[in-house]
Amino acid sequence: MGAVKGKRMPRAVRERQMMDAAVRTFGQRGYRAASMDEIAELAGVSKPLVYLYLNSKEELFSACIRREARALVEAVRAGVEPGLPADGQLWAGLRAFFTHTAENPDGWAVLHRQARSHGEPFISEVVAMRDEIVAFVTGLIGAAAREAHRDPALVDRDVAGLAQALVGAAESLAGWANDTPGVSAKEAAATLMNFAWAGLENLMHARPWQPPEA
Amino acid sequence: MGAVKGKRMPRAVRERQMMDAAVRTFGQRGYRAASMDEIAELAGVSKPLVYLYLNSKEELFSACIRREARALVEAVRAGVEPGLPADGQLWAGLRAFFTHTAENPDGWAVLHRQARSHGEPFISEVVAMRDEIVAFVTGLIGAAAREAHRDPALVDRDVAGLAQALVGAAESLAGWANDTPGVSAKEAAATLMNFAWAGLENLMHARPWQPPEA
Repeated sequence: MGAVKGKRMPRAVRERQMMDAAVRTFGQRGYRAASMDEIAELAGVSKPLVYLYLNSKEELFSACIRREARALVEAVRAGVEPGLPADGQLWAGLRAFFTHTAENPDGWAVLHRQARSHGEPFISEVVAMRDEIVAFVTGLIGAAAREAHRDPALVDRDVAGLAQALVGAAESLAGWANDTPGVSAKEAAATLMNFAWAGLENLMHARPWQPPEA
Repeated sequence: MGAVKGKRMPRAVRERQMMDAAVRTFGQRGYRAASMDEIAELAGVSKPLVYLYLNSKEELFSACIRREARALVEAVRAGVEPGLPADGQLWAGLRAFFTHTAENPDGWAVLHRQARSHGEPFISEVVAMRDEIVAFVTGLIGAAAREAHRDPALVDRDVAGLAQALVGAAESLAGWANDTPGVSAKEAAATLMNFAWAGLENLMHARPWQPPEA
């Protein structure tokens, strides 16, 4: 099967190369269209070796989802600096998110597009990741609100809704930024900061927008 | 096949009943698990009649997506009153959106969950609907920004990004509101209005949030 280089390479390194090739292939060509031949060739290994290490196309795809989900969650967690004021935390978290999705467009396509469009068990994997991010954001907004205002200006359900809004906006913008030439990660983060911060700050200080009376 | 009532019923009415039954079944049980038997029974017609009118499960599902997409887009368009000030327009549009998704939870599940998770041609149908809503929202934000500020405070690309953020936030909140007992359409709309309006108003008046210097 041609030049199978690096026989002395540790298993972890070789597996990583296969996973890199798989994420790229699944992200760019889609789960169905991607072939194990293509992934093996891109990884510079034989197809039997891919099967030996990662069993099946389905398991390989699941492993890609888990790896990319883990990397995204970790990037966002690492980006937020808990000591900062609330706007600085949000800004840091958004930059971390959009930088990660911009630098890993194939990983983002696997998570946001491919995993969702090929049924179970893949959907459950990304739903679990999304729930984790929503819970993290809920915690941040709740803590910032308590710091800004001693009375519970925002009840838990409001905070949960705001976290859903923020995560949904970020997902939508990440897809748009990756598909629109010339939109940088910093620009996408600034768009969302502009969109969301003024409203969040008002709410944290118990200054909600009031609907007009019907 | 039992009591096939209403033989004198016009085709359009009968087709509508079948579609109602199909949306409910696909929305609640998922595309794969839904059976034509179940849909026929719920519609009170024979299974051959469903096939006669709507050809195949795939075509029936496509027809459901198109009908629900059309209804959602029309509800949002009808909800926005162009004569209102920008915040009134946004508030009216959001209430129309969340009222529609709350009153049609199965239709929303078909569009937002089922259609996306079963590949082509279904994904293209919902992407087209989403693009139409994003274009509509982009037009509204652009017009409001021009009215608020004579200088082009927001360039087209900023407006496009804001529309993506708003639509993504609304999608996320609609799913959360339908899954969370006791969250009303008005409450979901108010959450998003609170989240988004202050930032949008600032931007329209050329008062962007400024990132701290690195």
